[in-house]
Amino acid sequence: MTDGTCVFCAIVRGQEAASIVYVDETVVAFMDRFPVTRGHLLVVPRAHAVGLEDLDAADGVRVWETGRELARALRRSGIPCDGINLLLCDGEAANQSVFHVHLHVIPRTAGDGWSDLTHHAPERERALLDADAEVIRRALAMDRG
Amino acid sequence: MTDGTCVFCAIVRGQEAASIVYVDETVVAFMDRFPVTRGHLLVVPRAHAVGLEDLDAADGVRVWETGRELARALRRSGIPCDGINLLLCDGEAANQSVFHVHLHVIPRTAGDGWSDLTHHAPERERALLDADAEVIRRALAMDRG
Ligand SMILES: [Zn+2]
Ligand SMILES: [Zn+2]
Repeated sequence: MTDGTCVFCAIVRGQEAASIVYVDETVVAFMDRFPVTRGHLLVVPRAHAVGLEDLDAADGVRVWETGRELARALRRSGIPCDGINLLLCDGEAANQSVFHVHLHVIPRTAGDGWSDLTHHAPERERALLDADAEVIRRALAMDRG
Repeated sequence: MTDGTCVFCAIVRGQEAASIVYVDETVVAFMDRFPVTRGHLLVVPRAHAVGLEDLDAADGVRVWETGRELARALRRSGIPCDGINLLLCDGEAANQSVFHVHLHVIPRTAGDGWSDLTHHAPERERALLDADAEVIRRALAMDRG
């Protein structure tokens, strides 16, 4: 179920640093280290799958639902967010760069300058990612009552 | 459940031309009239919803699952497809242009030239869209046995 060389499997196992926003028995969500906008999140299944073809159906549904919940939290978090892109890149030809399937949840504002899937954003400091994660976790908790 | 001025509601009702690939009681999938690559599909819920915030949860899951099924069919259709992007644009700030929630299913090949969400592709002739739809429907039918 895991791949020893996979950085997202290492995050799922807690062996690699990440600013975690949400976990349950099926998925883990954390801040993208190279956010294209502030608040850029990734949702991954705990079970290693490369892409859409080998992703378990129920895991896929949970990834989708978590993406929606995080989109809702982002809109209420105070992080600038007037819109959301959900994006999944399946295969190198589709600009996938880490080969553990993941859904991008990207907060958008008019004129934020992002629109290109190939855009390489700079790494964001861990302390700032942790602070973003905390703000989103709080919005998520409020939403869930 | 529908909006009288919405072009996707008109497609769902059969009042607007579209090259339909898949229908069930919850969703309709059809060729994008302005495909960024050949085979570019849209999946919409039958029930009008503007975006992620007002989309029914079960409808959303069916949109996702249909996106996965179509991705699988595209890879087997003969239409050039080495990868797939699933993309949802929620809100004008996220480059949404038709305000009936829709999931883009975009076949990708290395060097296809697409990567920018703001890219405006030319309209594709209806006869060609119909031929693409036929090829994808056939792949979908094979997959379902
Ligand atoms: Zn992995
Ligand atoms: Zn509509």
